[in-house]
Amino acid sequence: MSLLTQEHELARKTAREFAEKYVDPIVRKMDRENYYPRETIRDAGELGILTPTVPAEYGGGGGDLRTAVVVLEELGRISGGFSLLVEALGILFADAVNKHASKRQKEEILPKIASGEKIGAFALSEPCCGSDAAAIQTAAVRRGGEWVINGHKMWITNGHYADYYLVAARTGPREARHKAITVFLLKRSNCVETSQIEVMGVRGTGTAEVKFNNCAASDDDIVGEVNGGWKVIVDTLNVGRTAISGVTVGIARGAFEEALKWARNRELFDRKLIEFQNTQFELAEMYASIETARTLAYYAAYLYDINSPGFLIMSHVAKLQTARIAVDVTRRAVQIEGGFGYSKESKAEMFYRDAKILEIGEGTNEVMKYVIYKLIEKGQ
Amino acid sequence: MSLLTQEHELARKTAREFAEKYVDPIVRKMDRENYYPRETIRDAGELGILTPTVPAEYGGGGGDLRTAVVVLEELGRISGGFSLLVEALGILFADAVNKHASKRQKEEILPKIASGEKIGAFALSEPCCGSDAAAIQTAAVRRGGEWVINGHKMWITNGHYADYYLVAARTGPREARHKAITVFLLKRSNCVETSQIEVMGVRGTGTAEVKFNNCAASDDDIVGEVNGGWKVIVDTLNVGRTAISGVTVGIARGAFEEALKWARNRELFDRKLIEFQNTQFELAEMYASIETARTLAYYAAYLYDINSPGFLIMSHVAKLQTARIAVDVTRRAVQIEGGFGYSKESKAEMFYRDAKILEIGEGTNEVMKYVIYKLIEKGQ
Amino acid sequence: MSLLTQEHELARKTAREFAEKYVDPIVRKMDRENYYPRETIRDAGELGILTPTVPAEYGGGGGDLRTAVVVLEELGRISGGFSLLVEALGILFADAVNKHASKRQKEEILPKIASGEKIGAFALSEPCCGSDAAAIQTAAVRRGGEWVINGHKMWITNGHYADYYLVAARTGPREARHKAITVFLLKRSNCVETSQIEVMGVRGTGTAEVKFNNCAASDDDIVGEVNGGWKVIVDTLNVGRTAISGVTVGIARGAFEEALKWARNRELFDRKLIEFQNTQFELAEMYASIETARTLAYYAAYLYDINSPGFLIMSHVAKLQTARIAVDVTRRAVQIEGGFGYSKESKAEMFYRDAKILEIGEGTNEVMKYVIYKLIEKGQ
Amino acid sequence: MSLLTQEHELARKTAREFAEKYVDPIVRKMDRENYYPRETIRDAGELGILTPTVPAEYGGGGGDLRTAVVVLEELGRISGGFSLLVEALGILFADAVNKHASKRQKEEILPKIASGEKIGAFALSEPCCGSDAAAIQTAAVRRGGEWVINGHKMWITNGHYADYYLVAARTGPREARHKAITVFLLKRSNCVETSQIEVMGVRGTGTAEVKFNNCAASDDDIVGEVNGGWKVIVDTLNVGRTAISGVTVGIARGAFEEALKWARNRELFDRKLIEFQNTQFELAEMYASIETARTLAYYAAYLYDINSPGFLIMSHVAKLQTARIAVDVTRRAVQIEGGFGYSKESKAEMFYRDAKILEIGEGTNEVMKYVIYKLIEKGQ
Repeated sequence: MSLLTQEHELARKTAREFAEKYVDPIVRKMDRENYYPRETIRDAGELGILTPTVPAEYGGGGGDLRTAVVVLEELGRISGGFSLLVEALGILFADAVNKHASKRQKEEILPKIASGEKIGAFALSEPCCGSDAAAIQTAAVRRGGEWVINGHKMWITNGHYADYYLVAARTGPREARHKAITVFLLKRSNCVETSQIEVMGVRGTGTAEVKFNNCAASDDDIVGEVNGGWKVIVDTLNVGRTAISGVTVGIARGAFEEALKWARNRELFDRKLIEFQNTQFELAEMYASIETARTLAYYAAYLYDINSPGFLIMSHVAKLQTARIAVDVTRRAVQIEGGFGYSKESKAEMFYRDAKILEIGEGTNEVMKYVIYKLIEKGQ
Repeated sequence: MSLLTQEHELARKTAREFAEKYVDPIVRKMDRENYYPRETIRDAGELGILTPTVPAEYGGGGGDLRTAVVVLEELGRISGGFSLLVEALGILFADAVNKHASKRQKEEILPKIASGEKIGAFALSEPCCGSDAAAIQTAAVRRGGEWVINGHKMWITNGHYADYYLVAARTGPREARHKAITVFLLKRSNCVETSQIEVMGVRGTGTAEVKFNNCAASDDDIVGEVNGGWKVIVDTLNVGRTAISGVTVGIARGAFEEALKWARNRELFDRKLIEFQNTQFELAEMYASIETARTLAYYAAYLYDINSPGFLIMSHVAKLQTARIAVDVTRRAVQIEGGFGYSKESKAEMFYRDAKILEIGEGTNEVMKYVIYKLIEKGQ
Repeated sequence: MSLLTQEHELARKTAREFAEKYVDPIVRKMDRENYYPRETIRDAGELGILTPTVPAEYGGGGGDLRTAVVVLEELGRISGGFSLLVEALGILFADAVNKHASKRQKEEILPKIASGEKIGAFALSEPCCGSDAAAIQTAAVRRGGEWVINGHKMWITNGHYADYYLVAARTGPREARHKAITVFLLKRSNCVETSQIEVMGVRGTGTAEVKFNNCAASDDDIVGEVNGGWKVIVDTLNVGRTAISGVTVGIARGAFEEALKWARNRELFDRKLIEFQNTQFELAEMYASIETARTLAYYAAYLYDINSPGFLIMSHVAKLQTARIAVDVTRRAVQIEGGFGYSKESKAEMFYRDAKILEIGEGTNEVMKYVIYKLIEKGQ
Repeated sequence: MSLLTQEHELARKTAREFAEKYVDPIVRKMDRENYYPRETIRDAGELGILTPTVPAEYGGGGGDLRTAVVVLEELGRISGGFSLLVEALGILFADAVNKHASKRQKEEILPKIASGEKIGAFALSEPCCGSDAAAIQTAAVRRGGEWVINGHKMWITNGHYADYYLVAARTGPREARHKAITVFLLKRSNCVETSQIEVMGVRGTGTAEVKFNNCAASDDDIVGEVNGGWKVIVDTLNVGRTAISGVTVGIARGAFEEALKWARNRELFDRKLIEFQNTQFELAEMYASIETARTLAYYAAYLYDINSPGFLIMSHVAKLQTARIAVDVTRRAVQIEGGFGYSKESKAEMFYRDAKILEIGEGTNEVMKYVIYKLIEKGQ
């Protein structure tokens, strides 16, 4: 794949070896017990693949967005859940901090995140408002010389185990919508209450409901400007949207590889399953879909890396198309494996459940179409 | 729906009330804990909806195939798992016994099954051979005056809790394929070893691996003729294929109803979700699909009930199309519900996992297409 | 097919023989030259298949809606265009006249239509308003003791050759929408100006733009009540929506049959094309789709024939699903035939073009979804 | 789009201006009358866009494969037929001659082709063998000091008007398949008999049946080696497969642009059609699909241009996916336009017919899947 350089391929190799050696042994435990792989996160930190885009000076991988996509793809190939939590930690939290926080904040926090010593979470969504982020209700109110934050966040990946939160809070009237939102960097304390959410797939990510009860913050805890949080949010979602496409491609590949192996070994009517033309065509469809998803994800990341104006719409196109492809490819993988594919012995079974989140999380298919339409109207 | 009579609608009413009152409270427990609802099965037995097609003289519902479809639809609307276990118990086991067993066998067993006192399972599939039933390896060998059965069955619904098994066993060389298979009605004893299989959805059905280790059977335990088991199998699969389409329709409806309710209540961008044209069109698509599935399922059952030669191909068409519809409709339901739909709070989440089995169990999509093609060749 | 009686099968036989003998020889000419088969319409009239639902006393077939569906299916199997023009003539015009016109009007006109001596057209759509019929602008104004009609109709099947028109005209303010529309039965005269429209498929139907320039009408020319035209229109569209599903099924079958024949004869890689599993599965898909379309069409018509309240929503479901099936099946037929399928030697090529109108004419897919959603809201 | 350089964008600009100025006025004539735009080809030659990859020294555009893709995209946006004939002329014929012919052959022929003075055609397919090129039956037999060629070619784009043919002929036994094929460069003479083929879309390309009756050729007329024709064929098809993806993208864009314009202007229920969410989402889907197709086409061409081993499989993936996208996007365009979209007033109507060839020509979808599977097996 030539949208990638040798450095990207090196990062891939590291991530792949890590995934096969460290993540593979815990993938079932994550899925069955909703087990949060705290130790394995530390292992990933040691290898520098937890925060692929954070500069090396802070202990990160020092790569670009394509690096992140490739790393997440390789992790997703073994575990959708592990890949997703790294995406939330390394991109939504750490990349955002790196891009928008002050030097002091970065120096204090990023090394601990990059090493896996501490966990950070990006706390944006609320029960009221998944797709409509500008309507959030969590509020930061000025009292004495400080801010007091109250609110209720939802679907916060790593939220149950996080030591730090990037919290989007309203600092003005609801009618002001996105113009009155500020992002705070909060250290976890007693004011934070979390409870895990049980989900269909990508399990073991510590995804939680997070309540902030009178949490105090100082001006120094603000990331970006007061009432300038929307810029932080939008930038972060742009990067995240592309990074998560890497997770998606990985999930599809994981399912494809298992199904291919199964088809090669399974016998049916005295032939190998793979000798049937239908099986061959199904595998070809899956492969063509995966290469399509991959090309879109790499290309969107590439456009970001070269700072192309084409990035914005392509990141939405890539998110929309790769998510559907993952749902479709994993469904075909289960189908090829038949009863086995439906059993918990199979990984296709897990990947099928994992894949569905990708049409919902970090912007639903519907939000993607809405934005693409808006960009068409603007004369894209 | 006018392919149905008032009696069918009466059966529907009974099944619906039962499902809402008795099954609804245990549906989560079945799904989460793979809990087998032994008591609720007895309750269903009391109401006569466990064996819809078994004659009233044996304690069954005394209905036709449409009755079974309607009952399973109503059960499936609340729980795919409960509906599936009833289908396996009431159709694959009890309807088969009723159609093919001797008067003595029926008198002894059917009343206990119909009342829910005893559990029966249809044991056909093997690890080697899901789609190729004529290749089964379980063997019944003549020794002394009796048959000794050894073999290994797989994916046997209710198998872990069954008191009786209809066992398909080879009674001749493997090369003879379907011409050397006999069906036995075995009472469970120490020779039977079972272990549950963990699956993605339709959980709580006691689906198991079942091993027969030197199980003894007499000539009286044979159902149908020696080496005449294929007829029993084919007849049973024909009925089951149509009955399971009822399960399918129910699952799709359950998901649709939840999504509709969600869309009516959920707010987004200061409007109800249902006010968006995209939501309305999605709901219309789901509804159109469900009515299509329903019409096909009822019509296939109707053709069976009037003994029409068109039944065979229509039962395959209905199985193929309804299964896909259920996968598609449940996916759309999850999507409408967004993050909630992906969480275990939602029933759409469960129905989405449930639905996938329908493209695999009791004949995969691929087997459906294979048979339809063969029937085309025969000049259908 | 058991939703049909022997009488329906008899009507099918007659229509099939007619189609093969009379329509088949002109189908290419219709398609290539946009040739209107005036003589063949007369032939159809003689056989009583031009107006399947018009009572025998007026020279019609005296059948029910299923009769019409079956007849149109058989005509569509040979020529989508011929089937569509019969649907417009026999249902949209003649069935509407039979149901809503006065005895005098019926006696005068129906025998001539049924025999094929005269042509009638249903003139509803306008350039402004295809999907929004309540917004039509053609106006009938009271002047002296008569009505003067002015307006511009579009997409009027048979319109170029019609001797009579059922014209929907506004008889009140535009704001009154459907409450101020009246239907007139106009005999063609100099005030009528028509020009044919060139279309992609279903060619040879005399589809035209029709202008009414100061056409005079008396009270006796009104069909139904003054300002009561909406009832006539809605009733007619309901019947038409189901009848056209028969056209659709026929087109799909015609394409399937040619593709099947081609696959049996064509050689590829030293085998017959039909020996490839992919071809077999494609044919099975097409067959399953066609049987699905058929079942829906027959069932909707059956619900109409037994006056079931379930008819309304089912007629929309059937229209939506059968149209898509025809587009999909004809696409697959072209694909099976490869280069030949793309050439004008093939009939699949024609059927592919024909099929697309079915997602548009007599209510687009979008209108179907809109209405289905409205009916869901009403608690269907 | 950053897979492209400024030079590519320059070529795009030239091609776009040419298409809008020279091709647009004749596009309807080409479609309706199957009119071969002999003069416009000369105009294209003058602008150097007829043979985008032929070196400047021979009068060509001197570009790479991406140049060709971009040029064909822009032509296809105005006329699928014109784009396809340029693809066949400039790539299948001229690029093949440039890569495989002798210096003498190139010097003699390429300047005339590049200028549009002479027409060349690539004559490979036969009635027997579209997908199985190794089975061709046209034979070149040694007689005296020369070769005598007899055979029957089919689907030869530009074939009816060609002055030169690249003819693939068998020079050994049929059993030797691809090892006994030689390519000849024949000047048209009396021995060549052609007749045009009437097709559904991409009309006006002079696609013909071509018969070679005892055509004489010398050793100097061989392109490549004796019995080495397969290499010429495979190389040419590889390039062509990617180039035609440009045609495909163009067709999809042409349809999208018309539908977008229509939606902006058309009124429905007192609103612009484009104000409906369904229309917006449809347009977003189309746009996302087109960008996907585009990315795949450019990327495949890029891999060729950098001589990447990834090119082979990606060219098949791109061909498969872009063809489907064009069929889907043009179908949606017709649907958005409703009745107008089905009429010959609309260009969507034409593009819909054009698009279908792309799933068939230069390798069917099925051949793409077959090859992709084979490449998976080889460990791609």
